[in-house]
Amino acid sequence: MRVGKVNPLWHTVTGMTPRPCSIASALTVIGEKWSLLVVRELALGVHRFDEIQANTGAPRDILTTRLRRLEEEGVLERRQYQERPARFGYHLTAAGKELRPILLSLTAWGEKWTPQVNAYDWVHECGETLELTHTCKSCGGEVTGSDLRARLREPVATN
Amino acid sequence: MRVGKVNPLWHTVTGMTPRPCSIASALTVIGEKWSLLVVRELALGVHRFDEIQANTGAPRDILTTRLRRLEEEGVLERRQYQERPARFGYHLTAAGKELRPILLSLTAWGEKWTPQVNAYDWVHECGETLELTHTCKSCGGEVTGSDLRARLREPVATN
Repeated sequence: MRVGKVNPLWHTVTGMTPRPCSIASALTVIGEKWSLLVVRELALGVHRFDEIQANTGAPRDILTTRLRRLEEEGVLERRQYQERPARFGYHLTAAGKELRPILLSLTAWGEKWTPQVNAYDWVHECGETLELTHTCKSCGGEVTGSDLRARLREPVATN
Repeated sequence: MRVGKVNPLWHTVTGMTPRPCSIASALTVIGEKWSLLVVRELALGVHRFDEIQANTGAPRDILTTRLRRLEEEGVLERRQYQERPARFGYHLTAAGKELRPILLSLTAWGEKWTPQVNAYDWVHECGETLELTHTCKSCGGEVTGSDLRARLREPVATN
């Protein structure tokens, strides 16, 4: 039996209800392998269904579903590039573009901790091959994760 | 028909083989909603199966499978915390800990682009509520994704 001091961050507020969390919410939109690989392709400048399909290896029916969902969620938009027959390309919205740093983080993690090596580098506008670091906007120092603590937010007054 | 200049980054090397990519490789390990939510719980200091289950809302059988896979992949490790009956807690390895900045990025994206608001903040060791930025290690400037271009790597000589 566990008794004594309990950190409220450990537990959900209402028993078995999952923790309210914007990570979970973000993952509901893009927390699935094919969706993030679609974002990768659009970020690399690939916009056509057949090429996205070839470069991700996603089954066509699953890819169709994912593209529709990402469009509904506002991560990408379709743009017509040909009239007869009508053909559409897929492009990142502002929300989609802001997923690119997350992909960069995943790239770095994958290169370090999985056997796969990338076929390409990202080059920053400064001219150097990108090595991404996570920093705190307030102090400018690097954020590793070990230097953080979670703090419950004050409930917002709604009078 | 599309002819003319082709950017080799658009296309896989061997036709329909998916693009070799460490993002895909990273997502094979953790590119799934429950896996990243497990990492969230361990990062928040929650280590026991029942609490991870309650806080993520993952079905128990799926959670069991995900925990086993994350252990095999070296993202977490089991540690015994009780002898009779034997009970084990789950803890992030070094590889798992390096996923925390990715979760922080996902948190920020989720708060900005989805309706869900977090119940907690992260506080950096500098004392301020964390606002995460992505920066280039070479120039120290912010990385947004619009300031990047992809460059194919030179094949590595293997003589």
